[in-house]
Amino acid sequence: MSQRIKIKALLQTTPAEQEVNVKGWVRTFRNNQFIALNDGSTNSNIQIVVDFQNTDEALLKRITTGAALSVTGILVASLGKGQAVDVKATNIEILGDSDPEKYPLQPKKHSLEFLREIAHLRFRTNTFGAIFRVRNSLAFAVHRFFQEQGFVYLHTPVITASDAEGAGEAFKVTNLDLDNLPRTENGEIDYKQDFFGRATNLTVSGQLEGELGAMALSDIYTFGPTFRAENSNTTRHLAEFWMIEPEMAFYDLADNMDLAEGLLKYVINYALEHNREDIEFLTQRLLDEEKSKPQQERSEMSLLEKLQFCLNNNFERLTYTQAIEILKDSTPNKKKKFQYLIEGWGADLQSEHERYLVEKHFKKPVILTDYPKEIKSFYMRQNDDGKTVAAMDILFPGIGEIVGGSQREERLEKLEQRMDEIGIPKDELWWYLDTRRFGGCPHAGFGLGFERLVLFVTGMGNIRDVIPFPRFPKNAEF
Amino acid sequence: MSQRIKIKALLQTTPAEQEVNVKGWVRTFRNNQFIALNDGSTNSNIQIVVDFQNTDEALLKRITTGAALSVTGILVASLGKGQAVDVKATNIEILGDSDPEKYPLQPKKHSLEFLREIAHLRFRTNTFGAIFRVRNSLAFAVHRFFQEQGFVYLHTPVITASDAEGAGEAFKVTNLDLDNLPRTENGEIDYKQDFFGRATNLTVSGQLEGELGAMALSDIYTFGPTFRAENSNTTRHLAEFWMIEPEMAFYDLADNMDLAEGLLKYVINYALEHNREDIEFLTQRLLDEEKSKPQQERSEMSLLEKLQFCLNNNFERLTYTQAIEILKDSTPNKKKKFQYLIEGWGADLQSEHERYLVEKHFKKPVILTDYPKEIKSFYMRQNDDGKTVAAMDILFPGIGEIVGGSQREERLEKLEQRMDEIGIPKDELWWYLDTRRFGGCPHAGFGLGFERLVLFVTGMGNIRDVIPFPRFPKNAEF
Repeated sequence: MSQRIKIKALLQTTPAEQEVNVKGWVRTFRNNQFIALNDGSTNSNIQIVVDFQNTDEALLKRITTGAALSVTGILVASLGKGQAVDVKATNIEILGDSDPEKYPLQPKKHSLEFLREIAHLRFRTNTFGAIFRVRNSLAFAVHRFFQEQGFVYLHTPVITASDAEGAGEAFKVTNLDLDNLPRTENGEIDYKQDFFGRATNLTVSGQLEGELGAMALSDIYTFGPTFRAENSNTTRHLAEFWMIEPEMAFYDLADNMDLAEGLLKYVINYALEHNREDIEFLTQRLLDEEKSKPQQERSEMSLLEKLQFCLNNNFERLTYTQAIEILKDSTPNKKKKFQYLIEGWGADLQSEHERYLVEKHFKKPVILTDYPKEIKSFYMRQNDDGKTVAAMDILFPGIGEIVGGSQREERLEKLEQRMDEIGIPKDELWWYLDTRRFGGCPHAGFGLGFERLVLFVTGMGNIRDVIPFPRFPKNAEF
Repeated sequence: MSQRIKIKALLQTTPAEQEVNVKGWVRTFRNNQFIALNDGSTNSNIQIVVDFQNTDEALLKRITTGAALSVTGILVASLGKGQAVDVKATNIEILGDSDPEKYPLQPKKHSLEFLREIAHLRFRTNTFGAIFRVRNSLAFAVHRFFQEQGFVYLHTPVITASDAEGAGEAFKVTNLDLDNLPRTENGEIDYKQDFFGRATNLTVSGQLEGELGAMALSDIYTFGPTFRAENSNTTRHLAEFWMIEPEMAFYDLADNMDLAEGLLKYVINYALEHNREDIEFLTQRLLDEEKSKPQQERSEMSLLEKLQFCLNNNFERLTYTQAIEILKDSTPNKKKKFQYLIEGWGADLQSEHERYLVEKHFKKPVILTDYPKEIKSFYMRQNDDGKTVAAMDILFPGIGEIVGGSQREERLEKLEQRMDEIGIPKDELWWYLDTRRFGGCPHAGFGLGFERLVLFVTGMGNIRDVIPFPRFPKNAEF
């Protein structure tokens, strides 16, 4: 018997009446004659032509949507439209039946909400096949980008005892018997008896540990899961999501921005090159979806155009202070259309402001820098003005913040002073402070929310649709 | 000023009296004249030659081990041994001081145990620089291997409600206030009020979710953190470790073994090609370490030889049943030297047995197949003999089990029957069973413990030394 060939390769094969074997799942079966078979290697199906007059009827009945088949046949030029080759079946083997009465995925359009409830099967749809192939390419492109530049991929810990950034938004991790919690003499929970001998939680960021690596290896990046126990039921938040966090010794804020912009362009370009068909499918999907919307709510650019636009234009760079001026004078602010009106310098930017800057004012990705120190984290480097820190956020159309970063405060005295002001316990972060005590140097880094990147490149609207099994309040199914 | 060049690139540059800038950390400073500077891009240092007679004495005093410097100078052919080029410094800037009285890393040999306590600084040693560069290459090689074969990288969830495999070894994840646990009317903890509306824990394996992806995308792999709350204080176990778990539709056990053997050879070869210098350093380190051991405890092959041997030889494949025969007749069994004597078929193999097979009997990597079903997991495909399952474990010299895999049970009836026998709740795994109801097919997969792979390739003896910040009983520092 011929060796199995994947459908992606088969569709690019010149037909010469050769025998081939394909395996996959039935998408549709028309007229007892044409099977559309898919194996996930590509969005396209191979058409199997069945000689139904010479095929056992019992077998034909088992060729139902969702069934797994092994088909041996002859590869011929297709007579149909939309495909170059067909397989004229000589032997069809049912590897696994799929009862059409019970199979949840019918050959019709299902809502994204319904598909979320059967996330174990949604990989079998065109939309989710495309999404997860694009996600795969983006993940690999991230690694390739950093490897080409000599970065070291560092696995920072998921379970951690420090909650410096989390501020109560971290999930607790424990091995204690919750029904019978050990207590100290004072009646407090005795974490000394817990697995790690102390209270632990799930990491909210690998940055602090990442910096430790950068202070020896120069350039490192993390790519791992991070967690927030935030009760946000939005289309942009997950309780479990993947982050990419590079940290670079000897980088300043400008270097940091260049790297982040370079990374985003590199990975988008990689997906366009390797997943053209998937992105074209998703572009059409978005057009179809937006047809039901009023004209003014539709995107000005198609998905494909938006990605290309992003590659071909420099991101707009401006300071927070400049952004505030623009927002203060903007029509929605003057007409009091913003939910949070911009009164002046110091205001924390909300999603509506970010979107105005990106989607209305500049109409392209924007990098905002030099935020007030009060609205940013303790580890960001203080600027000489005494008011701002060397932070940078990258804002993307339709997404908002996709990257948040900064030059890090390398001066021990300034860092300790800021920690004292905010009330961050220095003894817990002794190891972090050590890197400022012993050969500290200017350095910078940023965090890229991977799912937000996938949202942008796939044109999907809900972050729960771009991760295989989303985790959010009241949901940990699968 | 010249743009910074990394030391790895600089050492490969032809000296032509050009001006260069390097940044890094001082490893040693000899005779007020020769600085060995390292930036983590390579194990080698660049030698900076200081014109001490024309350099400010206060500056010279600040050139201490661990200090961060920016050095501008002229690249010249080296007069010293062991390096091709030197930098004749024209300007030295201290970016960060390092008080020699307090800096924990002195220019002498430190024990691995001590370095584990200062894991935030151990990246700055030759040994750990080499280890984490090798780890980086192995991780990237894993991705490259699977991408070249059209696999989809799938992020399976870290927080999960199913504990099918864990059997109590899973860490609990909660957002409840442990000091004030909500209770139901029956007095039980009310997990409905927890973040996910149910009890959750940290994943012990992404396999079951991985299979869901494979049943649509054909070939997927995971590469993510997994967790065991096992109280094992050994040199081979961690509470948090990284696993690679490919799952392939339409694969049988032989295909599975071929893939795993191919993967291991590919990534070892990649590290040898990209980290030759690091591996040579680690080879010498191991030789030095073993000098203090009696002859019979030293390795027969050097690290480099062992890796090459592994590439150039087929792994030995045999069944569990054949292995038992060998072990029963072995000298240590007859002489009662094994702690657990092999009486006959059905015994679970212990580390001592695995090591005998690999290190004494076959003297090469071994793949054992077809284990008794009683000692393997419920999802493994039952063989026709009614006694064994289509499992496979790959055993490596010095490491023991590095891969565990199987063909998966695709027959719904057999699978449900086995779950009933073992007492695994079928309703919790409805989604897993669905993939057998709707277009199930023969498929297989395996898990590769990433840290065990890094142990093997670096020749290190303790798994806590091959992950940046190890998690083990009573330790979650950093």
